[in-house]
Amino acid sequence: MSWRASVLSIFPEMFPGPLALSLAGRALENGLWSLEPIDIRAFATDRHRSVDDTPAGGGPGMVMKPDVLARALDACGRHDRPRLLMSPRGVPLTQDRVEAWAQGSGLVIVCGRFEGVDERVIAARGLEEVSVGDYVLSGGEIAALAVLDACVRLLPGVMGKEASGAEESFAAALLEYPQYTRPQVWEDRAIPDVLVSGDHAKIAAFRRSEAERLTRERRPDLWAAYLDRIRRSTTNR
Amino acid sequence: MSWRASVLSIFPEMFPGPLALSLAGRALENGLWSLEPIDIRAFATDRHRSVDDTPAGGGPGMVMKPDVLARALDACGRHDRPRLLMSPRGVPLTQDRVEAWAQGSGLVIVCGRFEGVDERVIAARGLEEVSVGDYVLSGGEIAALAVLDACVRLLPGVMGKEASGAEESFAAALLEYPQYTRPQVWEDRAIPDVLVSGDHAKIAAFRRSEAERLTRERRPDLWAAYLDRIRRSTTNR
Repeated sequence: MSWRASVLSIFPEMFPGPLALSLAGRALENGLWSLEPIDIRAFATDRHRSVDDTPAGGGPGMVMKPDVLARALDACGRHDRPRLLMSPRGVPLTQDRVEAWAQGSGLVIVCGRFEGVDERVIAARGLEEVSVGDYVLSGGEIAALAVLDACVRLLPGVMGKEASGAEESFAAALLEYPQYTRPQVWEDRAIPDVLVSGDHAKIAAFRRSEAERLTRERRPDLWAAYLDRIRRSTTNR
Repeated sequence: MSWRASVLSIFPEMFPGPLALSLAGRALENGLWSLEPIDIRAFATDRHRSVDDTPAGGGPGMVMKPDVLARALDACGRHDRPRLLMSPRGVPLTQDRVEAWAQGSGLVIVCGRFEGVDERVIAARGLEEVSVGDYVLSGGEIAALAVLDACVRLLPGVMGKEASGAEESFAAALLEYPQYTRPQVWEDRAIPDVLVSGDHAKIAAFRRSEAERLTRERRPDLWAAYLDRIRRSTTNR
């Protein structure tokens, strides 16, 4: 059984979108995963096909109705895959979560829209609220594309031998070191000598120190965690 | 002059993708913004149309060539718009940055692929590296879609009156409170009494306390910043 994604949205035509191309698109064609876009509006029962209504207690915007969304979720089958709700209110997405999901049987993803989703359906259907970052999107669709792209590249057979995943930013707890390629000199800028020296130990040391510098400059949070880990491994000796 | 986005990618056909629909799509049709996908490969000069080469110093994967990317960037015009490079190595995107970009004349966005982009072109062309979150995507394209969606919804005339932006998560420094809508009782779960009481002060207090609870539970980082702000405003009195 291949990895299976169901995406619930009022814009099902946004899928597969960019996932029809490149790595994810090839994997989709090759049956390494499947994608089922589900139109939430198809589960509305009134003659206007309403999926939203005004917020209880007042306030701007509209809220997604619990009954309609629950029917759409129940049509995906029960309890076999994690069910996510893409929302700026969610727990921030990390690569650890992505790896765990990629190792499972697939995902059910609800794309939030409007001011939010009725809290009762989140609780009753066990939706995990996930945020892709501290910025506000017009809906959860692009966030769902990000989750799917991140998961699919990790599925067996998708990346092939070229990218190992092992040298990546969050695996190593440091940001990636700077990269260079030909030409050797470009606009009067040369590739750093050490990288063309052939001295593998020096190259590794240079890359390590550059990765540390970038992490310190750009990500004080990751840098503090990295120092902390070093400190603990030294103390425990 | 409307807000102008140029996106450099080896998959230009991924754009506008989901941005052709919904809020961003309507705004695109109405000329509130424009989107120019640029095929980096069109700026390659060898007969294989190469855009990448092996990393100097060794290692897995391929690195985007500085000369080809520089020519593609130079074709976008110089120095009028911020130039971003979507990369997991970048500074994390926040809503503050989105707001600043939305107030400008537009963006030039480079979608990274492979193991990275030659460091010299990042420096020589002043690319700002931006990360949409701590997870690894197969390329910068979906990250670019996220940046554009976040910016476009803030452009004048795009959202209309219904969503003010003022009540949103990161504006208020707290996560959004739970929302409810009709039906009043659904699957034996009722909307909390206070929300249907008509007592506006009680409703506001309930929502505030729920927003605080969610932030404390899900985002210790935002919660600490919020407490810190309260503490300082009390001390400064």
